Amino acid sequence: MPSYDDTNVFARILRGEIPCHKVYEDADTLAFMDVMPMAQGHCLVIPKSASRNLLDADPAVVAKVATVAQRLAIAAKAAFACDGVTVFQFNEAAAGQTVYHLHFHVVPRIEGVALKQHTGQMEKPDILSANAERLRAALA
Amino acid sequence: MPSYDDTNVFARILRGEIPCHKVYEDADTLAFMDVMPMAQGHCLVIPKSASRNLLDADPAVVAKVATVAQRLAIAAKAAFACDGVTVFQFNEAAAGQTVYHLHFHVVPRIEGVALKQHTGQMEKPDILSANAERLRAALA
Repeated sequence: MPSYDDTNVFARILRGEIPCHKVYEDADTLAFMDVMPMAQGHCLVIPKSASRNLLDADPAVVAKVATVAQRLAIAAKAAFACDGVTVFQFNEAAAGQTVYHLHFHVVPRIEGVALKQHTGQMEKPDILSANAERLRAALA
Repeated sequence: MPSYDDTNVFARILRGEIPCHKVYEDADTLAFMDVMPMAQGHCLVIPKSASRNLLDADPAVVAKVATVAQRLAIAAKAAFACDGVTVFQFNEAAAGQTVYHLHFHVVPRIEGVALKQHTGQMEKPDILSANAERLRAALA
């Protein structure tokens, strides 16, 4: 497996080099909106530490990120009145990983509504901003 | 959200009422082969405690199950020489959940090989048994 490359987009978000629609932050983790959402309210949870994916991460980091993903799943259920929440976590390209910094996808689901392609269009910033605000309010 | 119903198939596996192809067990968690695998080596990690899904689980349980899922992802990479590992975790029917006991899917991925339908045929017991053995060997 290749080693961690800190030029990936999530590392750049962590360094503040590019913006994100932040939902949650603590000493170890950051959560923000996916800019190409598979469904309304799709957000991501990442560790601040440098891990490529589950295959090289410290188990304590995995534990922390998973519990934050859980909090976001619960918040998403309240924020978007959705019927369910799908969590995806991809390791390496064959598994669907496109950004090589460990991340969990938290995707609100509505009964009968299929997921959109993750490689589609960028969502409008005002919509991402509004959805981040709804998640932050539900977390509070 | 409905409350936990202990007649679900994973609760029955935990009580020993129905068999499974066991991969790993500790005081808090059990891992076993999915009988309708989406790919060769597809296994499941569940807590022994009664949780419907992420939306009602104790965060300590989520942390523990996630780290066992990580161990299985690493083991799967070695056991099946796969190119990646996809982790799925479904909460409620709209999100793809069909058994209402918290579980993480750990699915080995081969480049260019699409996932099989999860609602397909039951895999042959001897194949499940052999794949469980490969995962146990990789964990050891």
